[in-house]
Amino acid sequence: MTKNVYSFSEGNAEMKGLLGGKGANLAEMTRLGLPVPDGFTITTETCMTYLNNERMLTKDVQDEIELHLKQLEERSGKSLNDPENMMLLSVRSGSKFSMPGMMDTVLNLGLNDENVEHLARVTQDEEFAYDCYRRLLQMFGDVVYGIDGSHFENFLEFYKRKNRVKLDSELTADQLKEIVHEYKRIYLEIKKQAFPQNPKEQLFAAIEAVFSSWNNERANIYRKLHDISDDLGTAVNIQLMVFGNSGPNSGTGVAFTRNPSTGENKLFGEYLINAQGEDVVAGIRTPLPISELKTAMPEVYKQFFEMSETLEKHYQDMQDIEFTIENKKLYLLQTRNGKRTAHAAFKVAVDMVEEGLKTKEEAILSLDPHSVNQLLHPVFVEEALKSAELISTVGLPASPGSATGKICFDAAVAKEWSERGEKVILVRQETSPEDIGGMVVSQAIVTSRGGMTSHAAVVARGMGTCCVAGCSELEIDEFIKTVTYPKGVLKEGDIISVDGTNGDLYVGEVSLELSEKNEYFETVMAWSKEFSRLEVRMNAEMTSDIETGMAFEASGIGLVRTEHMFFAPERLIEMRRFILASNQEERNKALQTILGYQIDDFKEIFKTISGKSTVIRLLDPPLHEFVPSKEGDIRKIAEEMGVQYDYLQHRVNELHEINPMLGHRGCRLAVTYPELYIMQVEAIIRSAIELKKSSQMEVFPEIMIPLVGMEGELSSLRTKLENHINHIMDSEDCSVPFTLGTMIELPRACLIADELAKSADFFSFGTNDLTQMTFGFSRDDAAKYINQYLAEGVLPIDPFQTLDVTGVGELIKIAVEKTRKTKPDMKIGVCGELGGDPHSIEFFDQLGLDYVSCSPYRVPVAYLAAAKSGIRMKNK
Amino acid sequence: MTKNVYSFSEGNAEMKGLLGGKGANLAEMTRLGLPVPDGFTITTETCMTYLNNERMLTKDVQDEIELHLKQLEERSGKSLNDPENMMLLSVRSGSKFSMPGMMDTVLNLGLNDENVEHLARVTQDEEFAYDCYRRLLQMFGDVVYGIDGSHFENFLEFYKRKNRVKLDSELTADQLKEIVHEYKRIYLEIKKQAFPQNPKEQLFAAIEAVFSSWNNERANIYRKLHDISDDLGTAVNIQLMVFGNSGPNSGTGVAFTRNPSTGENKLFGEYLINAQGEDVVAGIRTPLPISELKTAMPEVYKQFFEMSETLEKHYQDMQDIEFTIENKKLYLLQTRNGKRTAHAAFKVAVDMVEEGLKTKEEAILSLDPHSVNQLLHPVFVEEALKSAELISTVGLPASPGSATGKICFDAAVAKEWSERGEKVILVRQETSPEDIGGMVVSQAIVTSRGGMTSHAAVVARGMGTCCVAGCSELEIDEFIKTVTYPKGVLKEGDIISVDGTNGDLYVGEVSLELSEKNEYFETVMAWSKEFSRLEVRMNAEMTSDIETGMAFEASGIGLVRTEHMFFAPERLIEMRRFILASNQEERNKALQTILGYQIDDFKEIFKTISGKSTVIRLLDPPLHEFVPSKEGDIRKIAEEMGVQYDYLQHRVNELHEINPMLGHRGCRLAVTYPELYIMQVEAIIRSAIELKKSSQMEVFPEIMIPLVGMEGELSSLRTKLENHINHIMDSEDCSVPFTLGTMIELPRACLIADELAKSADFFSFGTNDLTQMTFGFSRDDAAKYINQYLAEGVLPIDPFQTLDVTGVGELIKIAVEKTRKTKPDMKIGVCGELGGDPHSIEFFDQLGLDYVSCSPYRVPVAYLAAAKSGIRMKNK
Repeated sequence: MTKNVYSFSEGNAEMKGLLGGKGANLAEMTRLGLPVPDGFTITTETCMTYLNNERMLTKDVQDEIELHLKQLEERSGKSLNDPENMMLLSVRSGSKFSMPGMMDTVLNLGLNDENVEHLARVTQDEEFAYDCYRRLLQMFGDVVYGIDGSHFENFLEFYKRKNRVKLDSELTADQLKEIVHEYKRIYLEIKKQAFPQNPKEQLFAAIEAVFSSWNNERANIYRKLHDISDDLGTAVNIQLMVFGNSGPNSGTGVAFTRNPSTGENKLFGEYLINAQGEDVVAGIRTPLPISELKTAMPEVYKQFFEMSETLEKHYQDMQDIEFTIENKKLYLLQTRNGKRTAHAAFKVAVDMVEEGLKTKEEAILSLDPHSVNQLLHPVFVEEALKSAELISTVGLPASPGSATGKICFDAAVAKEWSERGEKVILVRQETSPEDIGGMVVSQAIVTSRGGMTSHAAVVARGMGTCCVAGCSELEIDEFIKTVTYPKGVLKEGDIISVDGTNGDLYVGEVSLELSEKNEYFETVMAWSKEFSRLEVRMNAEMTSDIETGMAFEASGIGLVRTEHMFFAPERLIEMRRFILASNQEERNKALQTILGYQIDDFKEIFKTISGKSTVIRLLDPPLHEFVPSKEGDIRKIAEEMGVQYDYLQHRVNELHEINPMLGHRGCRLAVTYPELYIMQVEAIIRSAIELKKSSQMEVFPEIMIPLVGMEGELSSLRTKLENHINHIMDSEDCSVPFTLGTMIELPRACLIADELAKSADFFSFGTNDLTQMTFGFSRDDAAKYINQYLAEGVLPIDPFQTLDVTGVGELIKIAVEKTRKTKPDMKIGVCGELGGDPHSIEFFDQLGLDYVSCSPYRVPVAYLAAAKSGIRMKNK
Repeated sequence: MTKNVYSFSEGNAEMKGLLGGKGANLAEMTRLGLPVPDGFTITTETCMTYLNNERMLTKDVQDEIELHLKQLEERSGKSLNDPENMMLLSVRSGSKFSMPGMMDTVLNLGLNDENVEHLARVTQDEEFAYDCYRRLLQMFGDVVYGIDGSHFENFLEFYKRKNRVKLDSELTADQLKEIVHEYKRIYLEIKKQAFPQNPKEQLFAAIEAVFSSWNNERANIYRKLHDISDDLGTAVNIQLMVFGNSGPNSGTGVAFTRNPSTGENKLFGEYLINAQGEDVVAGIRTPLPISELKTAMPEVYKQFFEMSETLEKHYQDMQDIEFTIENKKLYLLQTRNGKRTAHAAFKVAVDMVEEGLKTKEEAILSLDPHSVNQLLHPVFVEEALKSAELISTVGLPASPGSATGKICFDAAVAKEWSERGEKVILVRQETSPEDIGGMVVSQAIVTSRGGMTSHAAVVARGMGTCCVAGCSELEIDEFIKTVTYPKGVLKEGDIISVDGTNGDLYVGEVSLELSEKNEYFETVMAWSKEFSRLEVRMNAEMTSDIETGMAFEASGIGLVRTEHMFFAPERLIEMRRFILASNQEERNKALQTILGYQIDDFKEIFKTISGKSTVIRLLDPPLHEFVPSKEGDIRKIAEEMGVQYDYLQHRVNELHEINPMLGHRGCRLAVTYPELYIMQVEAIIRSAIELKKSSQMEVFPEIMIPLVGMEGELSSLRTKLENHINHIMDSEDCSVPFTLGTMIELPRACLIADELAKSADFFSFGTNDLTQMTFGFSRDDAAKYINQYLAEGVLPIDPFQTLDVTGVGELIKIAVEKTRKTKPDMKIGVCGELGGDPHSIEFFDQLGLDYVSCSPYRVPVAYLAAAKSGIRMKNK
């Protein structure tokens, strides 16, 4: 028979799949002898069975829960039905992967109109008892009965204002009773149903609500966003209540074993006195830093400090710990690996290797390659800041990085604006899980309430989005859509600039530049190179980009897009002369001029890359990209070039294509105009020869022919180009090394890779075009439907951002297998966008490719991804 | 050691690969005891060795030729060097596949200034001897020395005119001597080299010239056109001369054992008295019908008639026989399977089965499916002919069919015009192998000279192009580009109409209609269905097209393109309302109206196809195809529809796509607007229900979703559509059969066919889109380079006309294998263009597909191709 329920003493940290992260860690802490309130966990499998069984708990499951409840009563000497020794429970969800704020919690479960009086009597604290009860009513109403939490909150706010009470903890017992009374009325009004007085009824309703919450919309979005399977389910943890709200010697808090923003090895956290559960993360009261606990309750602090060290050592990672103090007694309610900024992640990883807590391999595996992007986040230009108008400096630096964008006050507007290409900044009093869709698309998040562990802060750090939290100087009116700050008012759509690293906000747009690298990053990069089998090259042709890639130690250039060199005005005019020429002689004359420019281009590239291999792709785009398309432009250019308007218009029409992506481009141009590619290889070889002759510099051009789909294209072009190269080398009496290869970017090229290999020295996959052709997607047009596909789960991933392993990946696999049959040692790389995507890199590594090539700033991302892949493959 | 030379008695008809068709048949006729002048054949392998060995004959080959020459001298009692018993030779090429007029011939080889006198003396016929010599000079000069034949011909014409001689045979010995003298001067002037006097030197030079001619341009074009490998090579046949030009009791001719135009079982041919070799086919003198030989030389005729029967029985096919009569003695110089019109081919095939000469299977294998197109060639509309202005009725009906087009006088112009989409008719005095490129692209060929076996006639019949030959009323001036006919003058570009079935020519364009089928065609079709495993369906939605396909006994409809139903004005406006709607309600209203139309559409289709399976493809094209794109049209339509111009322009811009082929179309439309497909399936199911209720008619719709690339697309649409269908059937309380399947037309769909199969009842390959995506070719744009690709051999075939087995075929194979793994019995068909292409059909049959679907007129082509494939597979 399936076991559906585990008491904490039966589980351990390895059982995250079955018990959820929270349940497994509660069990593990129990095993370690740490002070965890007793309880048990209902498994994730039970959840899935429940959801698949038309949301019915089977008799077996009910019986098993009853049994564990009875055992818990026996162990604790308390009972749900004994008012003298009352057992109150917390019910919390917990799935395999951490989903902060996504699932739901009910505290103080077991209270009712009758036993709340007993509780008051036994604890001699009527305020405490009714505070617990009103919290239960509020949470249960929201989580179990789906009564919008604002009904309760709004009344509480109204009641406090009316009675001039500032803090919840200042409410008297009588006031709390009035609130409880009103809360029960809200049940009847909204739900047409009274609050259930039977504790066991409460418990089972809460369990079913937690299970059901697995399929709520916020959870679905979060899972989609984080690539978490819908089939995992959530566990339910049922645990004895401990009370942080039982007076001034009680409290509750959250702490990280190290600083999650900077990585500094120092306890970091916050707590609230006389508060319960969600009060800290909800950000309603501003909590105290954990360091103050040292003064307030030195014994408790010491105990917590030691336990946090124990946990970090045990888990070999920075921990995020929830605790509660009940009358000076410390309880741990949760521990998990702490989310952290990229800066912190790199520092923690390196520190832990130095502290002997992790090996280098483990450190690398603990890092997310995407976080490198965050590490290389832009910062404001020093000069620009001097003249920028400050909005506020009192906000908390909740997630580092800098950004500018337009103010949006709600998630829907943020999504809408960002979909039309605007940069937006979400500005709210506080955020809640409902805002997740808007947070994802924002450049930055600003809140006027909440601390460093508020929802906004935690989620922003997780996403690597910059965030300023708890900026109390701002008066944010989400309804009339204004932000009032000390010196003025901003409205929706106004541009602001946000510095998440120090918490400052500015009016208008402040220029950005890339942040400097730090020592931890350098160390991780050095290790990554040690463990990565794949070479990482860059896609670059501009000197500044090449220099950036060199700084990241790219092993060469994987893609020089020569067409980028044809658009400078003096070249464009020659290219147009070439296109408009009526005979070979005119064409040759235009090309001769371009040849001169191209020789300079390639010399510059070769000098900058100083002797590393350089893949140069010959001209790829269709010729119509070089001519104007609008009537006015055509008239202007015709005049400039001294040709008849009619003639130019005629040529433009001739060049027009219905589907340019599938048109006369790539090597097809060279089949029609071989002189184009001949000019380009001449430029490449002549520049190599000039550098060799003038400064003994040895360069390694790898000449790449794009869009090959037939063996005949490649073999005939190869012959023509090689003949010309040999002719130049003979006449210059100077030989330089070079290779000739092709891009594999058409489905057909994958299918005939064995044949193509005969005429190629290397292959490089062009994942952009290959993805377009394989899916039949035009990247320029797909935005119309691709977002909908992602939202509806028709597509699990955007195949232009992460390799579609099933389709495109299959073609790549076929190509590699066929190639290896003909030429086992052929050099094979990737130079499309996906060359810089971590998931895709792992796939390419497993296929045994030689290199990936990506934009210069993604080179370190790629190195880290390649290292992780290398380590995983070695560990297999 | 390789044997390079075979005497005729050593070979047989099976050795076509090694000895060429001509050599193998000469050997076979020798074996049959027929009167073939003695000789030997140098193999095709020797040719390839020669061509690959820098065009050098090895010592071994030379020795072997010398040996066979010696043996031939011994057998014949003649010698190259014995003026009393002079051996003269013919040297003729002959490759595995018949390449008429492509390769070259030299006759009378062995003559020189000295022995020509002896020949005159021995034969007592000076005219004959010098006629032979001038012919040798002319052919040798042209074939071996590359001296343009016009140099000789022009002089001969000039000389005859000057001396008022009409026919070559009227030239006196002295005149012929003067001509020989001038011919030898032409050698010195053009080639700067004298005619070689040594017979053996002549022989070896001729052999090398024949070998080299394998690679001449005409031969290359012909091979490309007929898909013949470049690696086969040509054999050389060396044979004792017999002389059709030795007086009035001699002659030469060509005859078919049956009529190659009609298939009638009656000897058909022509001959010329006192003529040699190429005189008949060159069409310079108009020959006599073979029936006249019966009167002229009854004995010879009887002998020839018997031999022709022997040959036909032996080869079990209609023969095309060349013969020469030397002083009343008959010699056979060649036999081969005769080229014939489609009409003849079908009649001969059926007759031969009836005569017991062939089995049904052999008869089917003997037919070319492409020839069905010719059989179904259009004919002029009777009514239209009555008012048409006749040009001439004296031309020979050289190749049947009717066509209209613009007059072109040379092949280059014909090619150029046809490439820009014009229909052209090539009009020439006579055609020659140089014209082949122009003949291929012409709708019809008209000549003023030459007979039924002239170059023009033979080539046109082979290609199924209509042809009127020897229309002597026309004065064609190819230089000033005019045709003068009895009643007027036509110039280049004028439109004429040509009836190749009766030889009539008309001024202007005469309307065409399809010819009636005949009994032989019906018989072959009946047999084809017997032997074809593949079903053949039609792509059709118009009633008249469906009726055509039904007449050809298509087994159902493989593709109804529903978008064709949206373009009638009253529907287009509703479709536009749908597209321009600003809310769901307006959209639904528009769809409701279209629903009504669609129900009528489908009822009409179901009634016409009367109970056969019908695959209906749901809407496929992008929405912008339904809105105007030009400003003027947008203004007009905006007014018509009562919407703001700006709004319509805005919507048009929104719908615009950069690459519509890869855009928002096919099932992607239905992911965005599910109501579109829901409306269509509702129309399908409602019309089925209505027919069932009103007339108990059972219909079998197979609903097909286009452009599926992801499992999620298909499964989610399937659920939505099935739900709706069930809802309709429930509410109508009537159940009708239906299936739901998908097109496989994206590379990715092929790669995930196993997954797609889970949600599909059938698959149908869309070869058009699949070819576009696999190659990255836009069919709309590819014309720009695809012709060049074909001309340069980069592409061996046009993949839009014949399946690219290597690339696209590989994807189809992958898809079929994956599908069969999931669903071994899934119905799989093809509905793209290639479903009607014979080569492609064989591939689909081998893969075990269930059906192909093609345009109605290709249904019989497909049946015949499927039958041939079925027979071949059974024979394996």
